[in-house]
Amino acid sequence: MEAFSDGVIAVAATLLVLNLVVPAAGAHGLAHALGRRWPAYAAYATSFITIGIIWINHHVVLGRLREADHAILILNLLLLMTIGVLPFATNLLSVYLNRPRGQHVAAAVYAGAFLLMSIAFTLLNWHILMRKTHLLRAPLSHEERRRIGLRFMTGLGPYVVATALAFVSQYLTLGICAGIALFYSLPVASGQQRAAKTA
Amino acid sequence: MEAFSDGVIAVAATLLVLNLVVPAAGAHGLAHALGRRWPAYAAYATSFITIGIIWINHHVVLGRLREADHAILILNLLLLMTIGVLPFATNLLSVYLNRPRGQHVAAAVYAGAFLLMSIAFTLLNWHILMRKTHLLRAPLSHEERRRIGLRFMTGLGPYVVATALAFVSQYLTLGICAGIALFYSLPVASGQQRAAKTA
Amino acid sequence: MEAFSDGVIAVAATLLVLNLVVPAAGAHGLAHALGRRWPAYAAYATSFITIGIIWINHHVVLGRLREADHAILILNLLLLMTIGVLPFATNLLSVYLNRPRGQHVAAAVYAGAFLLMSIAFTLLNWHILMRKTHLLRAPLSHEERRRIGLRFMTGLGPYVVATALAFVSQYLTLGICAGIALFYSLPVASGQQRAAKTA
Amino acid sequence: MEAFSDGVIAVAATLLVLNLVVPAAGAHGLAHALGRRWPAYAAYATSFITIGIIWINHHVVLGRLREADHAILILNLLLLMTIGVLPFATNLLSVYLNRPRGQHVAAAVYAGAFLLMSIAFTLLNWHILMRKTHLLRAPLSHEERRRIGLRFMTGLGPYVVATALAFVSQYLTLGICAGIALFYSLPVASGQQRAAKTA
Repeated sequence: MEAFSDGVIAVAATLLVLNLVVPAAGAHGLAHALGRRWPAYAAYATSFITIGIIWINHHVVLGRLREADHAILILNLLLLMTIGVLPFATNLLSVYLNRPRGQHVAAAVYAGAFLLMSIAFTLLNWHILMRKTHLLRAPLSHEERRRIGLRFMTGLGPYVVATALAFVSQYLTLGICAGIALFYSLPVASGQQRAAKTA
Repeated sequence: MEAFSDGVIAVAATLLVLNLVVPAAGAHGLAHALGRRWPAYAAYATSFITIGIIWINHHVVLGRLREADHAILILNLLLLMTIGVLPFATNLLSVYLNRPRGQHVAAAVYAGAFLLMSIAFTLLNWHILMRKTHLLRAPLSHEERRRIGLRFMTGLGPYVVATALAFVSQYLTLGICAGIALFYSLPVASGQQRAAKTA
Repeated sequence: MEAFSDGVIAVAATLLVLNLVVPAAGAHGLAHALGRRWPAYAAYATSFITIGIIWINHHVVLGRLREADHAILILNLLLLMTIGVLPFATNLLSVYLNRPRGQHVAAAVYAGAFLLMSIAFTLLNWHILMRKTHLLRAPLSHEERRRIGLRFMTGLGPYVVATALAFVSQYLTLGICAGIALFYSLPVASGQQRAAKTA
Repeated sequence: MEAFSDGVIAVAATLLVLNLVVPAAGAHGLAHALGRRWPAYAAYATSFITIGIIWINHHVVLGRLREADHAILILNLLLLMTIGVLPFATNLLSVYLNRPRGQHVAAAVYAGAFLLMSIAFTLLNWHILMRKTHLLRAPLSHEERRRIGLRFMTGLGPYVVATALAFVSQYLTLGICAGIALFYSLPVASGQQRAAKTA
């Protein structure tokens, strides 16, 4: 299951580059034409880091399993399907971020795609932790399983906010999504480190 | 063989996103323009889940093998070639589903591509089970091999129906293909579960 | 080295689908428009099978190695670079096969790309067999190494012919390339089977 | 971590082919039209070999690790993000190399993308060697760690020069980048060989 998942996630991350289109030089020169495309770069970086962090977490979640059954495979497939959509959502935001029309809808779709992906991930994780304890590699206490499950669930909050605020400001939505990616990149967000401090 | 197969299947699934094109906002706004593209989303989801289920079954079929010989590698290659075509068939259906011309042909090509893929898979599976028993990891009774082989063969039926009905209604064809994907996603369709109940 | 090579080869094979473009239905309907595109399907199938056979052979060649040194890695990279070009060459032939201009050059580039790829593969194989015997997993007699090396070298011949004949008929070139792919798909072309018969 | 990294690097290398576009035959025929596109081929080859060499080095660097922590995963992600951009930078140079406007900026972006990638790689390597010694598979002397770290850092120099000279001549920039790729392909650039000579 990991080889296929790694493949889909890696290809989705790399396809984000199709979002970067070679512009015509225009009246102000190529540097200016490239500069005007900053939404594409911001969306690329935000999406790439987010997909990368999904991949890291995906590895942790699946690493807890001794083996997978049909339900886990299908829930994992749903997660991959939502990840596969991200290059499209990224492209949509890149095109519309700076436009006077469609910018709010594009931002809502962008954050909404991340939210959908997070919901699929939360479902997969919850299913494994709560209903497939017998497939876990090492036993986890009920306490610990609840704690991990809740951490995933609270992770949905910021994406709900980002999606709702799309209708206030598309820049705010992109900023929140970038902030979430940044937050999970920091050492403080790493479960490993937190565990190390607790011990 | 698995690494290459996993790669092709994962890339084919992820390339389906190229099917989702950023639309012009148009007179009714971006939300409306996106909404009108629902055939693309329906076709994307149907194809992604179908490819994912192929991958799960592919894993089970190849997992029965201790090693592969030349004939198995070539039959597997034929299967991968038909999987590789699915992003094109998906794109074709997305573009033509709602059009007054070409919609029947596009639906026939779409279900026909799934049918072709199922035939290639059935051939590979039949060849392994009936002619390469000495390469199996664990011996299977003739009974059991026949049962598995027939299950694959009966799986062709719905795609034959979906292809034929394309000339009645393209929506029916897409509905049947989506239904097949949904059916195989349910726990009842999993061989594991069925085996568990039998035991 | 295998994971990276498998990745490049699998992605190159799957990118061939971008060669299949959704046509406008035109005056004669979609079925006719799709039918007229047969060069794209013929080129897709020929290229896909050829890349698949490269992959099978690549596996055999690298499987003989205990470990790889810098020279082997670089020669392998050159081979992958020529494989990476095949989606472009396939696209070129698909577009020009039926046209009154450029058809000969396109066919020459197509067969020439396969020839280039075969030369890179022959170089890699020759280098491993003749100069890196100490890195082989199992010792091979000088006789055997020569035999394998020559088999690769004689494999260049048909591609030389196919490239040269491009200027007589582009269809002949595609036919020869398809014939080569078909030949290597047959059991008779498999080294395993031949060895089995010899034993 | 390697499977995901291998995937992203392999896909980025293979996506370079999208840089090669089928041209219209034009007044002078297809051969002439293809010949005029030489910047695309030169940029393709330079980028492909460079990505391949990154992959080889990446393997060596990660191969030193027993396991990876959060900081290493994130730094690796940053490196992959810069690699993922290379198909775009390659495309940009291919389009603008021969044009009278934008050629300098395109060349600066091209070499600048390689520079950015090298900086990310140097950071990852430095972090592993200097701050995560306890995660190394085999202990390395401080001397040796400094030597490897400095070798990476001096590798940045040529890309700084190539980026700066883009405003003198875009051809010079491409030439330097190609030269760097060629240099690292030679046996002399291989650490293995050097070590062998020292011993």
